[in-house]
Amino acid sequence: MGQTIAEKILDDHLVEGELETGEEIGIEIDQVLTQDTTGTLVWLQFEALGLDEVQTELAAQYCDHQTYQFDFKNTDDHRFLRSAAGTFGAYYSRPGNGICHNVHKENFAAPGKTLLGSDSHTPTPGGLGQLAIGSGGLDVAVAMGGGAYYIEMPEVVNVHLTGELPDWATAKDIALHLLGELSVKGGVGKIFEYSGPGVESLTVPERTTITNLGTELGATSSIFPTDEKTKDWLSRIGREDEYVDLQADEDAEYADTIEVDLAELEPLIACPSMPDKVVPVREVAGTDVEQVIIGSCTNGAYEDILPGAKMLEGRTIDRKTEMIVAPGSKQASEMLAREGWTAEMMAAGVNFSEATCGACIGIGHVPSSDSVSLRTFNRNFEGRSGIEDDNVYLCSPEVATAAAIAGEIVDPRDLADELGDLDAPGLQMADKYSEGMGRDDPDIISPDEAVDDDLIKGPNIGDVPLKDELDADISGPALLKMEDNITTDHIIPATQDILMYRSNIPKLSEFTLSRVDETFAQRSLDSDGGFLVAGENYGQGSSREHAALCPMYLGIEGVLAQSFARIHKANLFNFGLLPLEIDADDYEKIEQGDDIEIVDDVAEAVRSGQEEFTVRVNDDWELTATLDASERERQILADGGKLSHTKKQAEGDSGAAPADD
Amino acid sequence: MGQTIAEKILDDHLVEGELETGEEIGIEIDQVLTQDTTGTLVWLQFEALGLDEVQTELAAQYCDHQTYQFDFKNTDDHRFLRSAAGTFGAYYSRPGNGICHNVHKENFAAPGKTLLGSDSHTPTPGGLGQLAIGSGGLDVAVAMGGGAYYIEMPEVVNVHLTGELPDWATAKDIALHLLGELSVKGGVGKIFEYSGPGVESLTVPERTTITNLGTELGATSSIFPTDEKTKDWLSRIGREDEYVDLQADEDAEYADTIEVDLAELEPLIACPSMPDKVVPVREVAGTDVEQVIIGSCTNGAYEDILPGAKMLEGRTIDRKTEMIVAPGSKQASEMLAREGWTAEMMAAGVNFSEATCGACIGIGHVPSSDSVSLRTFNRNFEGRSGIEDDNVYLCSPEVATAAAIAGEIVDPRDLADELGDLDAPGLQMADKYSEGMGRDDPDIISPDEAVDDDLIKGPNIGDVPLKDELDADISGPALLKMEDNITTDHIIPATQDILMYRSNIPKLSEFTLSRVDETFAQRSLDSDGGFLVAGENYGQGSSREHAALCPMYLGIEGVLAQSFARIHKANLFNFGLLPLEIDADDYEKIEQGDDIEIVDDVAEAVRSGQEEFTVRVNDDWELTATLDASERERQILADGGKLSHTKKQAEGDSGAAPADD
Repeated sequence: MGQTIAEKILDDHLVEGELETGEEIGIEIDQVLTQDTTGTLVWLQFEALGLDEVQTELAAQYCDHQTYQFDFKNTDDHRFLRSAAGTFGAYYSRPGNGICHNVHKENFAAPGKTLLGSDSHTPTPGGLGQLAIGSGGLDVAVAMGGGAYYIEMPEVVNVHLTGELPDWATAKDIALHLLGELSVKGGVGKIFEYSGPGVESLTVPERTTITNLGTELGATSSIFPTDEKTKDWLSRIGREDEYVDLQADEDAEYADTIEVDLAELEPLIACPSMPDKVVPVREVAGTDVEQVIIGSCTNGAYEDILPGAKMLEGRTIDRKTEMIVAPGSKQASEMLAREGWTAEMMAAGVNFSEATCGACIGIGHVPSSDSVSLRTFNRNFEGRSGIEDDNVYLCSPEVATAAAIAGEIVDPRDLADELGDLDAPGLQMADKYSEGMGRDDPDIISPDEAVDDDLIKGPNIGDVPLKDELDADISGPALLKMEDNITTDHIIPATQDILMYRSNIPKLSEFTLSRVDETFAQRSLDSDGGFLVAGENYGQGSSREHAALCPMYLGIEGVLAQSFARIHKANLFNFGLLPLEIDADDYEKIEQGDDIEIVDDVAEAVRSGQEEFTVRVNDDWELTATLDASERERQILADGGKLSHTKKQAEGDSGAAPADD
Repeated sequence: MGQTIAEKILDDHLVEGELETGEEIGIEIDQVLTQDTTGTLVWLQFEALGLDEVQTELAAQYCDHQTYQFDFKNTDDHRFLRSAAGTFGAYYSRPGNGICHNVHKENFAAPGKTLLGSDSHTPTPGGLGQLAIGSGGLDVAVAMGGGAYYIEMPEVVNVHLTGELPDWATAKDIALHLLGELSVKGGVGKIFEYSGPGVESLTVPERTTITNLGTELGATSSIFPTDEKTKDWLSRIGREDEYVDLQADEDAEYADTIEVDLAELEPLIACPSMPDKVVPVREVAGTDVEQVIIGSCTNGAYEDILPGAKMLEGRTIDRKTEMIVAPGSKQASEMLAREGWTAEMMAAGVNFSEATCGACIGIGHVPSSDSVSLRTFNRNFEGRSGIEDDNVYLCSPEVATAAAIAGEIVDPRDLADELGDLDAPGLQMADKYSEGMGRDDPDIISPDEAVDDDLIKGPNIGDVPLKDELDADISGPALLKMEDNITTDHIIPATQDILMYRSNIPKLSEFTLSRVDETFAQRSLDSDGGFLVAGENYGQGSSREHAALCPMYLGIEGVLAQSFARIHKANLFNFGLLPLEIDADDYEKIEQGDDIEIVDDVAEAVRSGQEEFTVRVNDDWELTATLDASERERQILADGGKLSHTKKQAEGDSGAAPADD
């Protein structure tokens, strides 16, 4: 039987299991990436595992989330990350050099390779044929130690593209269209694999916008075939020798096929506050806009920003609208500056920022109260912008720029009609990415050039807490009952005032779920254990493992939810928290404060493969909860989490590195 | 008798008093400026005074300190400032357009005019012959209402320049030299007026670096004569018609003359943590440097950044040193971008920031712990960078760039010897400032283009607290005893976590003097009134009036100090706090916690002009304290501060505007 592209790459890297949907497989990881909000824990865990050198072909540490360095803790984190990269043998990308996905794409991403990253948008380079997966940081630490990465074999879904995009419709609109059709849960347990004649009309920067947004569908990964467009892009970036031809076999079988006719798309926009609340721009036209931001890992490439710059040429932005451009990489910034576009945008009234994730996670350029912000980002979860009750819309750079010119939401086709001299900018590739640099990039420090050979820990950088083995008896109150679609931004907000404690777990834990219930953290600490209760899709969004680690630190022992987001569920195993699935009726019946008791011998049941658990509520009624976990996940859970598990294994192996976890 | 330049301008604007040193004079103000940390209070006070239109020739509101907008409160403040500028008739400079002093210099500053600004570095355009003075925001609000500005006539001191700067010595070194010679108290009560053959060798950007740093000497203002260089600069900026010839009369009399031979200067550096701890760079050469920042109102012009850019051409910064460039204005950013210098600096490893005060006040790019930062700024007060125990050095862009290349402090002359191909960049003027913009600046919204005609107040923007008339009996404990040189950064830190409450006085007051004693604010609230005790030069540094307003809100009724910084003393009057001078022996004898009682009928004594007050300590011993205040200041103080005073006057005048306060 023929194989899909995803299956081919997975097959090439398979070290355990079989490529059967739903079966756990272990795969070899070629490349890893981390960033500054998840990276400090990754390296502290790498250190705690007793490892001393990166074993993957390549590891890269980026500083992108907190490049403004509002607090010495941020700057200390960056210095620690530089020291860890130097000490253990990773590349180090300096603060200001750009967002991990953009810089990785430009410098390291390669067709046919596997990439594991402690950031949920890691699948971005799927647009050039890399199989890239986001995970918790601990999985990254273990992979860097040479361990395999374990995952349930996803379904591979074919997204079949026909036609070509009309003027003013963009790759962003393809992704928004899919989000509108499939919802933020539509990709759970799936890899989206693009095919069809529409593919060849899309450049690599457009493809990576689409694969980046696959994360918002809940997908494990997204991937495009490679072709002349891939070759062309690699050549412009100076890495044509890394081209590998990747095509699905003609008789490859997909779990499902989704048809998209690109010619039928139009400018779309995701309304507040979920990326799948997608409507045509015209439906919300006329809404006043106070802020417009172009950038992020989704639309931060040179090719993403150039259309906006062209639209602004000879024009100015509306006086009541602020427009910020924050490129995804310094490479993009430098090209725009060298060609005069930066000066042109500044003259139009744009506030041109350094390359950073920044505003996308509420770090800088927080919208004013009761205002509308249009952003080319990938997420508009409520409060993520840094203010509660925000009104953030997601759209293409063209739609964003049109709003900045008009001062209100407007379909750029209508604005073009109105202005008479506004042409659709289309997509223009950068001639050659490295042109003009003329010397080795000082913003990426290779392991050979490492500055440090020892870790530099500032006073806010602590150790990683460890959990004991799972007990036989687990009981406690339902400390918090939550709705559907609770994100990791709800669990641990990524705003600056909170995230600066990312390397200081006791302090960070005080903010756990504070956006849902401010009393939660203290109640948890006061309680001797307890449970979280949630609806569907618990833990969607960012991959940050603090969302499991902090509840663990607070003494939470399990989560009862109708369903879990993939990365967060893996993080729960990794930190020794029991993720149990319950049905909708039982979810309705449980109240916050109810006494929860797992009737079974939990440690024994988890280790032995038992799937159904009897949960007794208030000593009054019982429900059946399901533990959907692989043999490997069960041992990790029972050992108290992956760190304890890996250490235990390593000790059993006479201290050797966890070769295959 | 002949007049100095300062006397000529003051004479032209005199509405009350005589130009005798130490006598109070009232002067008419032509232009005012405010920024975003002081501006919200200025406009709330303008509103509280019941005024409805700006009366000065020009008023300009800048958004420069918190342009990163870490919190919705910052963004709300900016929107409020836009609405206030629109409502009351001021120019509004958008966030990202640059630092008030730089943008004002480029757009509005004019020889012979008076400028009052609620920022301590307001004297910057003295470099082009404007008499510019920093004050508390309330003085600015009153001046905008058409009231005169009152000040004790300063001494005018002649700084006589001869010779020309040798290679690698810069205008910054002239200012650092003066700081080293005169100390941060050397300019108190003085205007420095530059003269001599050395003046003509200095361009306007160099002169404004020097006048900017006059604030660090404690000077009321600094001013240069106008000449061909002034005309040339105004012509490049497109405002040659605003040139006015300004020279001191040949028989002008100065209080003192300071001789500086420019030819004898060399690269200098101010060591942590005071701008007057100046040594030759060579004395501290070899010190490892983790961070270098070029920018600020002191050295943020195109002409300041270009030398650094030239030094970096074809080179890269050291791998262990981060270098950030934050231009002083978007105009400078745009010119550097248009000419390719921005791309060149990025390629060298520079993190190129938006135009902002930012790091200079601890907002962004906070140094890592236990590290050295070299900055081209004007202040290195301990903790101002955002971390306690910081090690911030102040130097020229050339010295800063040399350190970024070498990774350690190095005299650029020695670096040039070592590298062999590093030429002294010298100073090159921008050809024409507005070249390439080709349309009206969208970053400055004129009163005619105003977006708003009513105030927009976010939930964090409150009203201004008012104080009652002074009582006859004032007594209370010495709640805090402090050393010499307490800055307004100690009284109200300007870091982001604190300053975001700048428009919310009850919340902001919680942080009053927290850097000296964390318990102070609560102890003050718990106490029924009380006093502050301080050594020399109390309240130096930033002009922020919160440093008087917050102690007032907490119930503090007076400050006993050996001496006061000028602007802060004016702010104490303006908010109804009694500033009493005491001698060194009495300062030594008073202990924190002592009971302080002013024996006199305070209200009566203040109003009647009594200078000596008897202060009884612990009902045990007495000291004599001096109130050095003009008749006008006494009435303000007795009325409970300038706002109460001005309202009372206006009510007395049947609600008319406070024409001459």
